[in-house]
Amino acid sequence: MGKRIVRYEHDGIHWGLLTEEGIYPAGQFDTLAAFLEHGAKQAEPAGNPINPEHVTLLSPVTTPAQIVCQGANYSSHREEGGLDAGRPPFNLIFTKAASSIAPPDTEIESPAHVTLLDYEIELGLVFGKKLDQKLPDDFSALGDYIAGFVITNDISSRDIQFAENQWYKGKSFRTFCPTGPVLYLFDKDEAQHVHDLELTLKVNGEIRQQANSFQLLYKPEETLVELSGMMDFWPGDLLMTGTPGGVALKLSPDEMNELLNPFEKMDKKMATLNKSQEKNEHYLQDGDIITSEIRSRDGSIDLGKQTNRVTFLS
Amino acid sequence: MGKRIVRYEHDGIHWGLLTEEGIYPAGQFDTLAAFLEHGAKQAEPAGNPINPEHVTLLSPVTTPAQIVCQGANYSSHREEGGLDAGRPPFNLIFTKAASSIAPPDTEIESPAHVTLLDYEIELGLVFGKKLDQKLPDDFSALGDYIAGFVITNDISSRDIQFAENQWYKGKSFRTFCPTGPVLYLFDKDEAQHVHDLELTLKVNGEIRQQANSFQLLYKPEETLVELSGMMDFWPGDLLMTGTPGGVALKLSPDEMNELLNPFEKMDKKMATLNKSQEKNEHYLQDGDIITSEIRSRDGSIDLGKQTNRVTFLS
Repeated sequence: MGKRIVRYEHDGIHWGLLTEEGIYPAGQFDTLAAFLEHGAKQAEPAGNPINPEHVTLLSPVTTPAQIVCQGANYSSHREEGGLDAGRPPFNLIFTKAASSIAPPDTEIESPAHVTLLDYEIELGLVFGKKLDQKLPDDFSALGDYIAGFVITNDISSRDIQFAENQWYKGKSFRTFCPTGPVLYLFDKDEAQHVHDLELTLKVNGEIRQQANSFQLLYKPEETLVELSGMMDFWPGDLLMTGTPGGVALKLSPDEMNELLNPFEKMDKKMATLNKSQEKNEHYLQDGDIITSEIRSRDGSIDLGKQTNRVTFLS
Repeated sequence: MGKRIVRYEHDGIHWGLLTEEGIYPAGQFDTLAAFLEHGAKQAEPAGNPINPEHVTLLSPVTTPAQIVCQGANYSSHREEGGLDAGRPPFNLIFTKAASSIAPPDTEIESPAHVTLLDYEIELGLVFGKKLDQKLPDDFSALGDYIAGFVITNDISSRDIQFAENQWYKGKSFRTFCPTGPVLYLFDKDEAQHVHDLELTLKVNGEIRQQANSFQLLYKPEETLVELSGMMDFWPGDLLMTGTPGGVALKLSPDEMNELLNPFEKMDKKMATLNKSQEKNEHYLQDGDIITSEIRSRDGSIDLGKQTNRVTFLS
């Protein structure tokens, strides 16, 4: 059985093991990398557990870290975004700024100039070991490099994302990546659960996204193989695997085509985007509550629950 | 007067002060952030200098680090890429993987599947201080956050960049960001030189890119203001300011439009790209030598010279 790790504030910042009895303190380490190296093995249900209601939960992924993201990696999300539903000929990769990471129960602060704020629940994979060489094509031992699973939310400003075409800026504002609460450090024999995790996101109690990670078009193992041939990862880095259908954004192929046209004037594009989305009541509003949960179907793995409140900055 | 800092291998990895007499050792620090905090002030021309020819120069930017890049930020480069030459309505931002950083005199290793390998000399700005809050709109004190200038080259696989539309992957292969040799730590009164640095890139001795940083469309100061409202930077992070005209890539507006169409079949797009570029002899070939230099017009700031050799991996 794996370990449910949390990071929390309670007379300082600590790491802890979450069990049904509460949180067992597991030491103080500045970074996730340091905890994985020096604290994770020793985390045990010993001593007096703390009531989780008495602490403030923090993101178990610490900053700085690389956040590498897969895009358009579920058929249901491809279709609603005006793309071909099938597995595309390439594994779409982009990044988010490290400082977008926020606690699991946080205010998502939408900058004043953002008009189309969207949610994207995603399964996050946390690196436990440095990866600096090409993995063999038949690589399947996820646990050799990935230490655990975590809930993430790839909060996105659709107006900035589509106005600028490169996605980094519209997805990188501070608080745009609530992460946690639980980092599930899996045992070797649990790695295959990465293909059977249920994702559920609700806004104000209404289910918006519900999917299972077996629907991922580019699987975690093949994604690691490809990325290992290109770049390095360090312990504590985060790979976000993409979001399923159910986000607010809905585009027809024609609309998507116009948005991607580099010669269309910016104000015309924005008019098209705004017109196509104006009757869409699923975009996030000031005060909305987003809850996100991920767990295995058999219940053996439970990444906890995020509860985020949307705040529009003025 | 500022300091010309180098990082080098010579019985271990060291930092040093480069002068006309040679390199004066300035200590051993694992990261650029540690050197900036504990070694930079003490770097002085004292003791016996080392002959630069007896050392192997390394990148003064160490990994991991954030590499944040401005795109299409010179009119001359916008025009050759099939874009409107004027200042665009937004500051285009993307990123490169930290592990793309390579020494200044290195082999650029082009993966076997890359077909259109291109060069992009860019002025790099190195953060000296944590930036974690919005700067005032009239911010102009570059030296409050930027410690120095460095030569970078945003090596790009045009085939992957345009096939996948998000630019991260095509620009992030290992060795795709040769950096250095000199990190110029400027004095406060030298900060304005950021607007008067001459960039020159040659391939096999032929000048391909020649420009001055006063031509930047989005200036470093306003870019810092915008990014500060979005994300955090840490000491040692790198901001690349964009490349001028003269790269191999040449696209007409019609070709650019087809490449950006998400409904065009991938093989058709790639046929268009390959056909448009096939008679272009400026793409990098196995064995090509790229040299890159950046210095102020008055000669007071000299970031040295990169000499990279292109190697096609099989």
